[in-house]
Amino acid sequence: MILHSEELVQLETRYRANLINSLGGFKSLVLIGTKSESGNENLATFSSLFHLGANPALTGIIIRPGEAKQNTLGNIMRTGQYTINHVLPSFYKKAHQCAAKYDPGISEFDTCGLTPFYEDGITAPFVQESKIRFACELVQKTDIELNGTFFIIGKIIHIELPEQFIQADGYIDLEAAGTVTCSGLDSYHATNRLARLSYPKTDKAVTEIPIV
Amino acid sequence: MILHSEELVQLETRYRANLINSLGGFKSLVLIGTKSESGNENLATFSSLFHLGANPALTGIIIRPGEAKQNTLGNIMRTGQYTINHVLPSFYKKAHQCAAKYDPGISEFDTCGLTPFYEDGITAPFVQESKIRFACELVQKTDIELNGTFFIIGKIIHIELPEQFIQADGYIDLEAAGTVTCSGLDSYHATNRLARLSYPKTDKAVTEIPIV
Repeated sequence: MILHSEELVQLETRYRANLINSLGGFKSLVLIGTKSESGNENLATFSSLFHLGANPALTGIIIRPGEAKQNTLGNIMRTGQYTINHVLPSFYKKAHQCAAKYDPGISEFDTCGLTPFYEDGITAPFVQESKIRFACELVQKTDIELNGTFFIIGKIIHIELPEQFIQADGYIDLEAAGTVTCSGLDSYHATNRLARLSYPKTDKAVTEIPIV
Repeated sequence: MILHSEELVQLETRYRANLINSLGGFKSLVLIGTKSESGNENLATFSSLFHLGANPALTGIIIRPGEAKQNTLGNIMRTGQYTINHVLPSFYKKAHQCAAKYDPGISEFDTCGLTPFYEDGITAPFVQESKIRFACELVQKTDIELNGTFFIIGKIIHIELPEQFIQADGYIDLEAAGTVTCSGLDSYHATNRLARLSYPKTDKAVTEIPIV
């Protein structure tokens, strides 16, 4: 099937949302934990996390307007902190439920059955059920005027994960840790490693890196 | 293991790159095809693609400075077009090899063994071996001054994929199509669906959506 710009515009809204959200490939799935100034905890599902740089360690997220995610945006802007928590097969249905449009006063932790967890020096709540989690400090918010979305850049200030998942060269074995990936708006997937490959050079064939 | 900002800064460069690149979860893996004004074809591996919006259909990528990806950036800026091609298990090693630092005059299609393929009205080359592929028109380039990277926004102007992978509601079954995901800098993975889940509502439990 071939679709051009003119046909894309004419697609039924939900069909187009499913199609375009799937088209970008598999995505990072995380729960973002925040707290309001008055102490309300919030937890929101995100599939737009992306890597920006390792030094300084920066990560980006896109927040769309007029969604359940406005509480997350408001909390990040007012408190400057948020946590990012990987999702496991044991609670991906709860993570999906966190995307429902709950009122600001309702904690998704309570209503979706996940446990808030705090670390010294971080005001935003982590998800206890998550094994790989980290915290960010807001560094920059950029308005994307083209479609009214917001591009949030955070600096990673705290990382926690079980040591057993870190290989000697710093690579985290996300597959062994059970981290879930997602596609489209609502599909969740575990993974099967094909291989880790050696650093690509112009004069050498790549080889597989063993996982130990 | 717990790491704070101070410890992150002190990590060995390659260890930190592996760690921070893994931390964000599974990523979209694509090959971006471009052509220079003088007709040189270029193909580059990207793991930073993210969804920006369905209407208009917008997609974002991050390009880092001083890398092999400078040819891609230059070609996008000068020609305004690029193609995005999903990667399959049958050629993920070739896709990885496309990340090596080849000279601008060398086509990664030729040297890595992939086949350029053209569609009417699109000047940038697609990857023939890829099943799901689309083309973008450059809409906006934003410099991220924090770390010297570039945030490129493209409008999707052309989509092609086998009809059999599109569900009735527009969702693309990427798993059936064989689309590969990646983690860290060098790990490649196939997927196993846990489930598609119904639209989350505050007053209803989610149910599984069958794939047909």
